[in-house]
Amino acid sequence: MPHPLNPAFARTFAPPVMEARRWLEGVVFPSDRPLINVSQAAPVDPPPEALRQAIAEAALNDPQAHLYGPVLGMPELRAELARQWSLAYGGTIGAAQVAITQGCNQAFCAALATLAGPGDEVILPTPWYFNHKMWLDMAGVTTVPLAPGAGLLPDPEEAAAKITGRTRAIVLVSPNNPGGAEYPAELIRAFAELARHHRIALIVDETYRDFDSRTGAPHDLFADPDWARYFIHLYSFSKAYRLTGHRVGAIVAGEDRLAEIEKFLDTVAICPGQLGQIAALWGMLHLSQWVAGERAEILARRAAMEQAVGTLEGWDLLGCGAYFAYVTHPDPRPAPEFARALVREAGVLMLPGTMFMPTDAEAGARQMRIAFANVDTAGIAALRDRLAAYAHP
Amino acid sequence: MPHPLNPAFARTFAPPVMEARRWLEGVVFPSDRPLINVSQAAPVDPPPEALRQAIAEAALNDPQAHLYGPVLGMPELRAELARQWSLAYGGTIGAAQVAITQGCNQAFCAALATLAGPGDEVILPTPWYFNHKMWLDMAGVTTVPLAPGAGLLPDPEEAAAKITGRTRAIVLVSPNNPGGAEYPAELIRAFAELARHHRIALIVDETYRDFDSRTGAPHDLFADPDWARYFIHLYSFSKAYRLTGHRVGAIVAGEDRLAEIEKFLDTVAICPGQLGQIAALWGMLHLSQWVAGERAEILARRAAMEQAVGTLEGWDLLGCGAYFAYVTHPDPRPAPEFARALVREAGVLMLPGTMFMPTDAEAGARQMRIAFANVDTAGIAALRDRLAAYAHP
Repeated sequence: MPHPLNPAFARTFAPPVMEARRWLEGVVFPSDRPLINVSQAAPVDPPPEALRQAIAEAALNDPQAHLYGPVLGMPELRAELARQWSLAYGGTIGAAQVAITQGCNQAFCAALATLAGPGDEVILPTPWYFNHKMWLDMAGVTTVPLAPGAGLLPDPEEAAAKITGRTRAIVLVSPNNPGGAEYPAELIRAFAELARHHRIALIVDETYRDFDSRTGAPHDLFADPDWARYFIHLYSFSKAYRLTGHRVGAIVAGEDRLAEIEKFLDTVAICPGQLGQIAALWGMLHLSQWVAGERAEILARRAAMEQAVGTLEGWDLLGCGAYFAYVTHPDPRPAPEFARALVREAGVLMLPGTMFMPTDAEAGARQMRIAFANVDTAGIAALRDRLAAYAHP
Repeated sequence: MPHPLNPAFARTFAPPVMEARRWLEGVVFPSDRPLINVSQAAPVDPPPEALRQAIAEAALNDPQAHLYGPVLGMPELRAELARQWSLAYGGTIGAAQVAITQGCNQAFCAALATLAGPGDEVILPTPWYFNHKMWLDMAGVTTVPLAPGAGLLPDPEEAAAKITGRTRAIVLVSPNNPGGAEYPAELIRAFAELARHHRIALIVDETYRDFDSRTGAPHDLFADPDWARYFIHLYSFSKAYRLTGHRVGAIVAGEDRLAEIEKFLDTVAICPGQLGQIAALWGMLHLSQWVAGERAEILARRAAMEQAVGTLEGWDLLGCGAYFAYVTHPDPRPAPEFARALVREAGVLMLPGTMFMPTDAEAGARQMRIAFANVDTAGIAALRDRLAAYAHP
């Protein structure tokens, strides 16, 4: 360990996705049985050609594509997101209430940093998105976990009972990573009422909103004219337009909140990357039909995944939606050990449930996250066959 | 102010560059006297055409340009920086000791976050780079300022006297922003010895290294086989290749330090933007001659700037180098007020010295930073003429 070291860093863990990548080192995957990688939620194909051409065109001919822009992002992109979200959510969102970030992870860090400091508390349902937990650890913020209920849904009453004088925010992810659950609008509303009542913030990370199986607005929070007093919405352009390598996300929040977030983004980013913003705006203006097709494909994969797990002896589906299936596994070994064995012996990389909850939570050892959106329906069938054929010792 | 608010955010200031941009609102600049903007250190032209073509080519034909990469950056770019830096600094730097970040500001935040937490102290010479101060404020770290000596150089003996049990790092910027000073190698070595002796870190931000007027290595720290125990180097690809809008920077540090930095970057960035990294690598492989020409041009502007200030009554040059002249002004009003008057009445935007030091430091009111690299020698002559003609009330 280096010296000196901020002790908050010693208290958190190494990036799980990078750790899982290291499990691949030295393992040879025969050509007739290549690796099936369902560890990271990431499109494996590049964006559609027309979008790639729009990026190339800007790189060649738009000088502004290479120069600094405003800290809170490109005005046209902020305005377009405000316009489309106002329609989609049935509310009123102004361009000044939108900030663009270098990815949705940064959106979370920026929003959270303005809310909570060392000794403060933030409520996080389990299983959680591990990067949220890492950031809270490094910021010295205490994470207060919520237990998963039926369908992996968190319980607002449990949250209410855990709010203290140090609580600063509740964080939801819907559709959920890692659980795949699509939170009902009434559930999100219940958490929002809780936040409003206790004068804390409700952050809802909607990275996977474009792949929700439901039609219409996934919640009605923006319909409240006072939403900006307690609600912070996070979004990612990475999944809809396959722009993971460009790092573009967004925050929708009150202007007074964005003024504080601007301080964080100025020091951590100066501005979001310009080509990524140009790509995101082009996507918003031209790719709605294409994204609808992507959504249909992901929903087909989801159906294939649900069916596949149903035929696997000893495996149970706890949640399935957006990019993820969250399952229990039948192996006698704890999930981290089993996951590494699957790499070597079945050519499959998935993440153990232990990565998504407190280290003392025993449930994680029996659970796995499968990022099925990374493989097509044929790949899902192959994954099923490998898991079915894998005889544990 | 939003509620709840992390009190550390209330203790820092709004981004100075954005504040200065707001001074332009509502001001009309006649076409025969357009704005001369010497506020932000930013190339105003796009990168050379061959580099723009390389970016466009990758956007069109390299699928990896759009997908996630490793948290610490593209392996080829890390290796090339390690190779070129080993030669340039006469030391041994391995690819595993290099991390790529979303700009050099993020490099600073990431390195600092692993070193110091709330209640810790970091030593920063004045005038300082305001974004360093903002990050320290938001992290709850106490900034311990050093007074500028002759040529705006900080004094290692003053630093030694200010080291306490809570000191975690000393931060230098050379060539300096905002002062323009090129720190002598022996001075940097003296700070390094101090850091080594006290088992703290020395961070040297070398964003402007490509425009140093000296030839050869600017310091000998990498020549010490044990450099990674106490030294952290920061770099930006933004200035050399005009890639400010792509956000690409670098950290050179020990592997154990980078393992901690990886936790921060995973949560704040996931990975640096791929096209920016592709551009930076292309630049490193093909643009060394071109950068040499850029350096010659900046040095010519520096000479023009020195001459110009010499002819301005009441103005004195405290430092001049890299992108910046740091001056005292003759106006009776404090610098922030004078700076705003210059916008309205002379069509010139520059930043007041108060932005670069503690609020109780009186010197800032008499000082200005001029980011002269943004204007050519004709622009510097025009700037001189406007300042000479400006009759203060």
